[in-house]
Amino acid sequence: MKPSLVKGTRDFGPEQMSKRLFIFDTIRATFKRFGFLPLETPAMENLSTLTGKYGDEGDQLLFKILNSGDFAASIAPEVLATGSKAVLPKIAEKGLRYDLTVPFARYVVMNRHALALPFKRYQMQPVWRADRPQKGRYREFYQCDADVVGTDSLLCEAEIVLMVHEVMRNLGIQNFALKVNNRKILTGIAEAIGAPGMEGALAVAIDKLDKIGQEKVLDELRDRGFAESAITALLPMFTMQGTTEEVLNKLKSWLTQSETAQKGIAELEETLRLVAQYGLENPQIELDVTLARGLSYYTGAIFEVKALGVSIGSISGGGRYDNLTSAFGTSERLSGVGISFGVDRIYDVMEELSLFPADAGQGTTVLLVPFDAEGRSVALPLLNALRRAGVSAEMYPDLAKVKKMLDYANAKRIPYVVLIGSEEVQTGQLAVKNMLTGEQQKMTAEAVISFVQG
Amino acid sequence: MKPSLVKGTRDFGPEQMSKRLFIFDTIRATFKRFGFLPLETPAMENLSTLTGKYGDEGDQLLFKILNSGDFAASIAPEVLATGSKAVLPKIAEKGLRYDLTVPFARYVVMNRHALALPFKRYQMQPVWRADRPQKGRYREFYQCDADVVGTDSLLCEAEIVLMVHEVMRNLGIQNFALKVNNRKILTGIAEAIGAPGMEGALAVAIDKLDKIGQEKVLDELRDRGFAESAITALLPMFTMQGTTEEVLNKLKSWLTQSETAQKGIAELEETLRLVAQYGLENPQIELDVTLARGLSYYTGAIFEVKALGVSIGSISGGGRYDNLTSAFGTSERLSGVGISFGVDRIYDVMEELSLFPADAGQGTTVLLVPFDAEGRSVALPLLNALRRAGVSAEMYPDLAKVKKMLDYANAKRIPYVVLIGSEEVQTGQLAVKNMLTGEQQKMTAEAVISFVQG
Repeated sequence: MKPSLVKGTRDFGPEQMSKRLFIFDTIRATFKRFGFLPLETPAMENLSTLTGKYGDEGDQLLFKILNSGDFAASIAPEVLATGSKAVLPKIAEKGLRYDLTVPFARYVVMNRHALALPFKRYQMQPVWRADRPQKGRYREFYQCDADVVGTDSLLCEAEIVLMVHEVMRNLGIQNFALKVNNRKILTGIAEAIGAPGMEGALAVAIDKLDKIGQEKVLDELRDRGFAESAITALLPMFTMQGTTEEVLNKLKSWLTQSETAQKGIAELEETLRLVAQYGLENPQIELDVTLARGLSYYTGAIFEVKALGVSIGSISGGGRYDNLTSAFGTSERLSGVGISFGVDRIYDVMEELSLFPADAGQGTTVLLVPFDAEGRSVALPLLNALRRAGVSAEMYPDLAKVKKMLDYANAKRIPYVVLIGSEEVQTGQLAVKNMLTGEQQKMTAEAVISFVQG
Repeated sequence: MKPSLVKGTRDFGPEQMSKRLFIFDTIRATFKRFGFLPLETPAMENLSTLTGKYGDEGDQLLFKILNSGDFAASIAPEVLATGSKAVLPKIAEKGLRYDLTVPFARYVVMNRHALALPFKRYQMQPVWRADRPQKGRYREFYQCDADVVGTDSLLCEAEIVLMVHEVMRNLGIQNFALKVNNRKILTGIAEAIGAPGMEGALAVAIDKLDKIGQEKVLDELRDRGFAESAITALLPMFTMQGTTEEVLNKLKSWLTQSETAQKGIAELEETLRLVAQYGLENPQIELDVTLARGLSYYTGAIFEVKALGVSIGSISGGGRYDNLTSAFGTSERLSGVGISFGVDRIYDVMEELSLFPADAGQGTTVLLVPFDAEGRSVALPLLNALRRAGVSAEMYPDLAKVKKMLDYANAKRIPYVVLIGSEEVQTGQLAVKNMLTGEQQKMTAEAVISFVQG
């Protein structure tokens, strides 16, 4: 009989929410400063919009919504016998959104005539996946995406680099690495070692270098069908240490034969040149030739952000794609580049490193504590005036014992309490107590307002 | 093949979203100033949590989520034959939230031990109802609720009155009426006219007074089973015009026999007295003895807000209830009072009356328009500096024709454009164009920053 949460979903109580709102507000404000405009799409999409966009596994993970009304009437007993796959289209036409990219593409297709290109939109909404819940993996979680579509300009890549730095610094995450790569370099490496088209498998294996070491990576490549000649040819890859500039130079001379790789290198160099022109202070960019994230999707730049000093996976990722709307059968080619921030991971990083500003989890600033009805008559106009001045303020609603009211202030972590007893009413000097230090000062109601505003 | 929206759902494009964000931000900031803390609950709840809380009709309107995996295997052919009601529990255990009150109650029950009472929470999230879509009625819409539970104090009612005034004024809706009533008065009237317990039918009929006139209201009451004596006894009800004070006095003398009514009147009077103590300027409160909203739920104060000068229904409503968590079988009685704001209706009111501030729908403030690569090298550091100063700024990503870039600025309603040609690069005097007035001025990059901040 006791109510419970759906497995893999969470409530966010006041303190968590206040911190989450700090993250949302910071990301939103940064997106806005970079000229991205807000979009919201419905939680429900037609299954015809969602199905086939995320691979077979993704289709399995879509939450499907039962048709309203007499759905059982649409199930013929003989269809039932053939299993869930045959029954599904009869009884469910809608599903919950799985990411923000497919709804964005659907929006662009449906509103193409009215959109000024390039179109820059951001979207911050929950998505749902019928995954097996486990630590750090939820069935409902927020994504914060910013994309610009309708231009090939590398300025957009540079903007993403700038914006990632801004978001991280505005959040207070000073210690991070923005890993960058380019799909064309990976493609070029596969070409250069005589394994064209196998960059996906290549990237997956090399990605494990830190964990399992060079020998085991090579073993895995053998298992994945790379010829011995390809593996020998790949060896220069493991000497790609150094500054971004050094690595780029090594790649340039190693991959002279691959036009694709040279194009990828040139794109990266141009992006970095543009970033330098902005005057970005202390860029935290790291070229990582093994970075691949959702390779099948990206066609140019690939981005990933990791917070340093914590063992939490990537907190942001994105890249350049070639055709946002092709899955909807459009003929127009709309290239774009985007970045997605994961609020849950960012929350974990900030919590673990104690990066939330002191007031991010704070609600009310002042609690008024009148001792009796007379004190109330002094408290109520002050309550009104505090709020008018933009201060979060409340009054304990019942005429309770003072201790009970102070306990309430402590439980809600309210930093200031104004005590209003009969002496305070008579003299007009109210007692303001700092709940952190215990310090107490007397002042007029007017003085309280500026005092608590710091 | 063309993608479409699920019926009854909507995309919110950039301009609508910017305006909606103005509403959300205003309501959220006001809730916060009144000491309400944020809560978010999952979109999905167990059907056992939702079912039976909204009446039979409500149960029909719940969106149900198909169980993952091989759901068809759980349908026995013989169960199928008995219809949807029997099949449902086998294949769907989850549903989408229908309102914010039941999830709030579930949260309180699950976290009761950790909550400091009185607990003040706000919640601003979408809800879903499988209603037949029609003009102004959607299957996905936002609710913005603020509730305080765990106290009977009428100060909470007064706070709601204050907060409604603050929200409306902060939104710019100066012309509104906050209708108030008390369930106990309605109960008392039913008692007084010899129809105890029939206050629900009474309120529904009287609510139509403005539309159908007194005679037809009385006819309806006859149809609803009110005796002729009751109808005669009700006649004083129709003379309840005048100021709130006058109406309260008339009620007091008319309903002397009903203890319940006298209690309701006293509660209303005390609430109004507290509101006056706050020093609320120009209160827009209107006592409406016929106001009933979801009567079965409310036990004391009833609130409803209407914008004047437009024919849009109520934009906000709420009231005092006796036991938030009883539906979950708890023994503790948690009384509360709450208010809910309807964002869609508020949007319609503000749009119809042109109340949105000029910058509510605005995204980017400045577009930089470099004529060539040289211009870009001047534009990029300025772009960075503008954003650092908090200004939303962007640069057209491609080196396109100037006209194309200006068209882009107009399409996005960007008010300022900075033109950077070779002359501007040489002299360091950039041309700032006001896109509304057409006016153009020359100034240094530094001056641009303070100029556009106005």
